[in-house]
Amino acid sequence: MSEIKFTYFNARGLGEVTRLLFKYAGIDFIDDRFEDEDWPKIKPNTPFGQTPILTVNGKTANQSTAIARYAAKQAKLVGSNDWENLEIDAIVDTINDFRIKIQQYYYEPDAAIKESRKGPLFQETIPFYMGKFEEVAKKNDGYLAVGKLTWADFALAGTIEYLNHISGKDLLEKCPNLKKVVQNVTSIPAVKAWIDVRPKTED
Amino acid sequence: MSEIKFTYFNARGLGEVTRLLFKYAGIDFIDDRFEDEDWPKIKPNTPFGQTPILTVNGKTANQSTAIARYAAKQAKLVGSNDWENLEIDAIVDTINDFRIKIQQYYYEPDAAIKESRKGPLFQETIPFYMGKFEEVAKKNDGYLAVGKLTWADFALAGTIEYLNHISGKDLLEKCPNLKKVVQNVTSIPAVKAWIDVRPKTED
Repeated sequence: MSEIKFTYFNARGLGEVTRLLFKYAGIDFIDDRFEDEDWPKIKPNTPFGQTPILTVNGKTANQSTAIARYAAKQAKLVGSNDWENLEIDAIVDTINDFRIKIQQYYYEPDAAIKESRKGPLFQETIPFYMGKFEEVAKKNDGYLAVGKLTWADFALAGTIEYLNHISGKDLLEKCPNLKKVVQNVTSIPAVKAWIDVRPKTED
Repeated sequence: MSEIKFTYFNARGLGEVTRLLFKYAGIDFIDDRFEDEDWPKIKPNTPFGQTPILTVNGKTANQSTAIARYAAKQAKLVGSNDWENLEIDAIVDTINDFRIKIQQYYYEPDAAIKESRKGPLFQETIPFYMGKFEEVAKKNDGYLAVGKLTWADFALAGTIEYLNHISGKDLLEKCPNLKKVVQNVTSIPAVKAWIDVRPKTED
């Protein structure tokens, strides 16, 4: 039996998608969390100065989306052919693009620059992306790709609370089909059981 | 026989990785290029306002990396198991992270903000990433992942000229192992033949 360890901040952030996938699949893993103040000690020992890190039988790998895709394969939540996997990968990377745009606002240390990004983000970027995602979810009948449950749905369900936190908005407020996507994931008993017991964190 | 069309700017940019992969595999595709001035007309008809777009038998998909991964599967340049594919995906996404950091400098319209990013980018970010990539290439004996030719090598070889262009530097200057990665791709006859005849573009 493989020993699997998933190392990340004590936060949902970029880590929760993989945790949800492992929990869905019933795959045991060490939920290795560190506090913000310990990050400077850990950072130099990571492959590119970033987390999450996945360790399987002593081998390590970085990059949140790459790790989530690996977890999704173990969970059998990938597409049934190359084209389906392209559709899934594309929407996952688009969620990442959207996240980066919100992060570029939220984490900007210069107050004037941050202020200048507010209008474009809240009046253009967020309505544009949420409108498009909602269309995709409607077309796929409550899923984000290929009309059935895949890890693309986990990519949204595992990130939406973080995105709401850093945008300061309820992003799904006017998006009934995206709410359905999230609910299709969070109502799965194994996922729900994890959400009930997981550490309560701010982001 | 599938009809494959790859739509992107008349540039290497985020499109050349996929073109190199299709050429390597001997897969026929329509190299559909548009000029910058036509982009405003094309943009509203793309899934999320972005290119490249891949069209196969009338179905379309977006996201450069997702498309390149699809092309890599057709080219049989992926890993031989899930862990190998995780290693490949991780280094590809890390190249993307690095690209985004250079783009955030190059495309910044505000001159003062752009200037403030110069020091961190050229004195910290670029030396850090290039040093790490060089280590990875050395460890993998002239490849970027799993010690053999994969699409991770194409991800670098197809992007390096664009990265040099937007950074204004010869990024591989002091990186003999990364030069080997690029040469391992560009010396393949089918790839070399394409490079010799492809449209000459600035970026």
